[in-house]
Amino acid sequence: MNVAVVGGSGYSGLELIRIILLHPKITLTNIYAHTQEYNSILELFPHLSDLLDLPLELISTLTDNKIRELKENVDVVFLATPSGVSLELGAKFLQQGFKVIDLSGDLRLKDPAIYQEWYGRKGADPEMLEQAVYGLSEWYPDKIRTARYIANPGCYATSILLALTPLFHHCLPIKSIVIDAKSGVSGAGRGYSNNTHFSEINNNFKTYKVGIHQHIPEIEQILEDIGGKKTTIQLITHLVPMIRGIFSTIYVEFAEETSYQEINALYRQAYLKQPFIRLRPEGEYPETKQVYGTNYCDIGLFFDQRTKRLILFSVIDNLVKGAAGQAVQNLNLMMGWEQDLGLTFIPLYP
Amino acid sequence: MNVAVVGGSGYSGLELIRIILLHPKITLTNIYAHTQEYNSILELFPHLSDLLDLPLELISTLTDNKIRELKENVDVVFLATPSGVSLELGAKFLQQGFKVIDLSGDLRLKDPAIYQEWYGRKGADPEMLEQAVYGLSEWYPDKIRTARYIANPGCYATSILLALTPLFHHCLPIKSIVIDAKSGVSGAGRGYSNNTHFSEINNNFKTYKVGIHQHIPEIEQILEDIGGKKTTIQLITHLVPMIRGIFSTIYVEFAEETSYQEINALYRQAYLKQPFIRLRPEGEYPETKQVYGTNYCDIGLFFDQRTKRLILFSVIDNLVKGAAGQAVQNLNLMMGWEQDLGLTFIPLYP
Amino acid sequence: MNVAVVGGSGYSGLELIRIILLHPKITLTNIYAHTQEYNSILELFPHLSDLLDLPLELISTLTDNKIRELKENVDVVFLATPSGVSLELGAKFLQQGFKVIDLSGDLRLKDPAIYQEWYGRKGADPEMLEQAVYGLSEWYPDKIRTARYIANPGCYATSILLALTPLFHHCLPIKSIVIDAKSGVSGAGRGYSNNTHFSEINNNFKTYKVGIHQHIPEIEQILEDIGGKKTTIQLITHLVPMIRGIFSTIYVEFAEETSYQEINALYRQAYLKQPFIRLRPEGEYPETKQVYGTNYCDIGLFFDQRTKRLILFSVIDNLVKGAAGQAVQNLNLMMGWEQDLGLTFIPLYP
Amino acid sequence: MNVAVVGGSGYSGLELIRIILLHPKITLTNIYAHTQEYNSILELFPHLSDLLDLPLELISTLTDNKIRELKENVDVVFLATPSGVSLELGAKFLQQGFKVIDLSGDLRLKDPAIYQEWYGRKGADPEMLEQAVYGLSEWYPDKIRTARYIANPGCYATSILLALTPLFHHCLPIKSIVIDAKSGVSGAGRGYSNNTHFSEINNNFKTYKVGIHQHIPEIEQILEDIGGKKTTIQLITHLVPMIRGIFSTIYVEFAEETSYQEINALYRQAYLKQPFIRLRPEGEYPETKQVYGTNYCDIGLFFDQRTKRLILFSVIDNLVKGAAGQAVQNLNLMMGWEQDLGLTFIPLYP
Repeated sequence: MNVAVVGGSGYSGLELIRIILLHPKITLTNIYAHTQEYNSILELFPHLSDLLDLPLELISTLTDNKIRELKENVDVVFLATPSGVSLELGAKFLQQGFKVIDLSGDLRLKDPAIYQEWYGRKGADPEMLEQAVYGLSEWYPDKIRTARYIANPGCYATSILLALTPLFHHCLPIKSIVIDAKSGVSGAGRGYSNNTHFSEINNNFKTYKVGIHQHIPEIEQILEDIGGKKTTIQLITHLVPMIRGIFSTIYVEFAEETSYQEINALYRQAYLKQPFIRLRPEGEYPETKQVYGTNYCDIGLFFDQRTKRLILFSVIDNLVKGAAGQAVQNLNLMMGWEQDLGLTFIPLYP
Repeated sequence: MNVAVVGGSGYSGLELIRIILLHPKITLTNIYAHTQEYNSILELFPHLSDLLDLPLELISTLTDNKIRELKENVDVVFLATPSGVSLELGAKFLQQGFKVIDLSGDLRLKDPAIYQEWYGRKGADPEMLEQAVYGLSEWYPDKIRTARYIANPGCYATSILLALTPLFHHCLPIKSIVIDAKSGVSGAGRGYSNNTHFSEINNNFKTYKVGIHQHIPEIEQILEDIGGKKTTIQLITHLVPMIRGIFSTIYVEFAEETSYQEINALYRQAYLKQPFIRLRPEGEYPETKQVYGTNYCDIGLFFDQRTKRLILFSVIDNLVKGAAGQAVQNLNLMMGWEQDLGLTFIPLYP
Repeated sequence: MNVAVVGGSGYSGLELIRIILLHPKITLTNIYAHTQEYNSILELFPHLSDLLDLPLELISTLTDNKIRELKENVDVVFLATPSGVSLELGAKFLQQGFKVIDLSGDLRLKDPAIYQEWYGRKGADPEMLEQAVYGLSEWYPDKIRTARYIANPGCYATSILLALTPLFHHCLPIKSIVIDAKSGVSGAGRGYSNNTHFSEINNNFKTYKVGIHQHIPEIEQILEDIGGKKTTIQLITHLVPMIRGIFSTIYVEFAEETSYQEINALYRQAYLKQPFIRLRPEGEYPETKQVYGTNYCDIGLFFDQRTKRLILFSVIDNLVKGAAGQAVQNLNLMMGWEQDLGLTFIPLYP
Repeated sequence: MNVAVVGGSGYSGLELIRIILLHPKITLTNIYAHTQEYNSILELFPHLSDLLDLPLELISTLTDNKIRELKENVDVVFLATPSGVSLELGAKFLQQGFKVIDLSGDLRLKDPAIYQEWYGRKGADPEMLEQAVYGLSEWYPDKIRTARYIANPGCYATSILLALTPLFHHCLPIKSIVIDAKSGVSGAGRGYSNNTHFSEINNNFKTYKVGIHQHIPEIEQILEDIGGKKTTIQLITHLVPMIRGIFSTIYVEFAEETSYQEINALYRQAYLKQPFIRLRPEGEYPETKQVYGTNYCDIGLFFDQRTKRLILFSVIDNLVKGAAGQAVQNLNLMMGWEQDLGLTFIPLYP
């Protein structure tokens, strides 16, 4: 099966390329990007020498006609383009009968007013929104299997939701949720900014997007969908002087008494058959390096006897499980393949 | 005035040496350490060439007699020794009439039972505990001025307390406090461990001492002392792949309505005359690199309208304001000097 | 085919485990280590959860009897033990009929006097030395195919030899060779030292083992073997604040006139059919990150018209091509498999 | 005495600000920059809160009239502007009677043809070139004392020249010089590029400007000036994933026999009275962190008995001794002050 990557010059696009190259059932035939500086993927990424050579086609050449032509050869399109760009392109690809896996945030929020509020622009058409399935693989496998358009979850959202969903699935009475999340710098992409500038970020720790991170409504929407009632979370995001990895520390206060044993049992059961969720044993907590380059989400649980709070520690590789890896996991589900096909990576440690 | 540093081979001791060398009114005459590997401070730290040369004397040679002799020349002793070691040494120096500034945790907790619980050993004698003044310079200046023994605050405690004390000083009704704190690796010292191993920590983010960090009771004790009532905090600590810096993100839930304006005014007033506390303007938040190598504590405030929580961001250099800098600030207070004498460093940026 | 790793608690051993797990034709059945702290590989390396669980057996239990028993199940042994340890163990395994791939330096130097000089201890028996084949896969494939004992090249030696051998193979008249080599910190292993201490190495650059690096005679021996005459190199090694990667800058002065074209042609031809050598086009130079996690050696050539020197830039991942990857490449050769079987990794970038 | 900094938004400019603030005899009154994004230095660099607040004036407003007005208040101008910009501005300031210290490369090369070749643009007028004194403080103090225009040396040039000049001053017969130099990322400035992008540079090592680094002719010119005969050097530059620091490894081949003792004696004597040159004892070599934030140049010497080469290791902080620190050292000389006035920093270690 042939696939195309649109947005191949960014880090999510690059990680898609790596993962597609390793996948036994799909072939990458087209890469599109905005850059005019490079003619081929090899000029841009010499580390792919001997592994792949494809031209870097311009996204702007993707007219309706071209998209129709492309359909003769390609079945699935991955959109690794920024929010705003995906919106328009996604609709075109969908119309021409492609399966689309959209790594941007454009189709994640079901309520256009909320999209407008957090993204600062008009959202998608209601019809498109209806077709888009939120691709949290572990929790919506049935919907994903039959979907034509996947809104692939955000990196923070993935790390946080996978840690919180078991509690909401079982409707444990929760009083408050505080999430302190930290990301490596690759989450800020290949673009230039003070947040990707080596001398500014190395040996530094900072917060960013305080009060305005667009993954907040995304997480709240899914928690409501799974738990059945409206939830407000507190989320603050931080930047860590490292390349890959998200570490979420989640503080949960319960409305009723519970215990480590009860909660642990609930998580073990929820993730018993999930190949990419690894629960740490009592007293052990995950580190971002332990999932480096893989599709794992590792979760640790601490029940604080002093405060009666549950503290969840959840780590992912933001470019894999938080982007390209989960995207391919969703494709696997859509195609009826094993969901871990081509995704059984071993962490590159140290 | 002559001073001695006991524990001069560790990073806090080394930072004391740097700061003492830059101080206009004190002279470093003796350095003690446990190591037998090096005969002089220069052998151990060649970067001090041309700046200082003193022998590294063995701590084990500090008998009662030797301490008495030392008193003829030296007035103040800084203890940069690990908890447990300070306890015994501190008593001896105190007895001989030294002013002692103890950077360890041994004399910070007033309740021996709590010390026993968190440090896992028997604590100090009641008499010593009575003499020890908690050296949070900005909040206990009067006690410090007349003290003979300073229990210098812990690094996390300093960063967190300076951010929280204004609320407690004004007795704002607080419902809950969640603190997510992050530290650079120098906080783990010059000793060898997986938490100081480059390949383990670089490009990695992890939590440590989950549920057992000894700064928890230290912070609670001081909040109670200042606010007048018992307080329980939630504190989780993390390790950042950088050398210096502590970043504390503090989530405060109030029992009554308040506002950014009210809280901001309260902080401005509390720290109006404090040379080392810098409050960021609305919408700006501090970064650890902004206090690199200095005695500043920079604080930012965000009042989340969605959740009605106050989020405090507090950064220090763990080796300066979190250890050696505050120690010298306390000495300045004890001697009746300006509290910022010799401490007006400019951040080394980038 | 079953294999065992002796020295599985170090970074080379760990990388062997990763690569063996990904290899389609071999199975890891036994891991030996010196540590008594951990009972299983999972206790030591939690990032391998769900991927592997084997006990960590003690190296000291490897008596002659045990080794004989092991032979019933296992055919190949990888020795990832330090120099000195391998010497003795290697002989035992060889005697019992194992194929041995020894990642240490013990059997690399053919002249016992030189081993004594650079390693500071007595070297191997002449018989063992005779059996040991130097495992530079690209240059000794025939000898490797029939070998029973492989002395796997050192990491610096691999990076430097692969860059220099084409010149020596063609007997270009060389006047002098200066090699300035730089390594990431994982080359110093999982052990504790100032060279693996985060706060000492981060934001620092230094040289080490000046004048005494044991890869110097190793490189000279192979250059002599390939070029047919005695050669003296100048090699200085440095430590880079990164985890993986070796970067060698090699300055070659010729005794006769030559040109970029001539040299480039010679390299193209030498490595035409080698799957792991990637030559950069004119004007482009490799970066260590471009081979991250892979068995590639990327080489760039610059012929300086001002000075008439050839400058070679050679990069490898020290744990893969510089250790575990080349070891498995050698096993592939020994078994008559494709030499890149199980080794077609894609660089993890960024 | 009042001074102005032109180019205050870059890292050299910022370091000038730090050093001027700490200097007892000069006051910073004006800062100029190209940016229109920030109105004041504090908006751009919040870490300077409470230490300084000055408007960021636009360089484009520096008309002849404005420069004349400025002269009433300001005596010295530091140009921390890019090459090309300094050329024009420097002439204007010089004409109005300012003392100018120019950190750019515009006035360093005496031969306009060479400037044209390496900088790719037309160089300065002969009159200006005549006035410009190369500000290598340790070797041209007399010229600097009477200069009106200082061409402050490049960072690599400083590190390399201070290591090589004693040999040339004593006219030792040298056969060849190979220099392998490595720089931290702050050398690439505050601007955006792949060489300052965190995810591209972290955990990576690369070379850059191969064969075209503009410090090559600068070094050769000074070596010729001091040694009295034309010299060709081989220089390759590399990028290290750290912020500050230059490490130069210099391989010197002699035409006649010499020894460690002879050379060491020569260096000891050359730098006996220089406050900023620290020679390491035999067998010890400097590390970049050992000069972090200081004006030191630390030098180590190794005489390789096998190859008869001298290997010099030279480290500086590129922003201090390699830029702003040496600039102020030159001002001290120009004003007849002690050359280390305001520059006695202690390395910030670790």
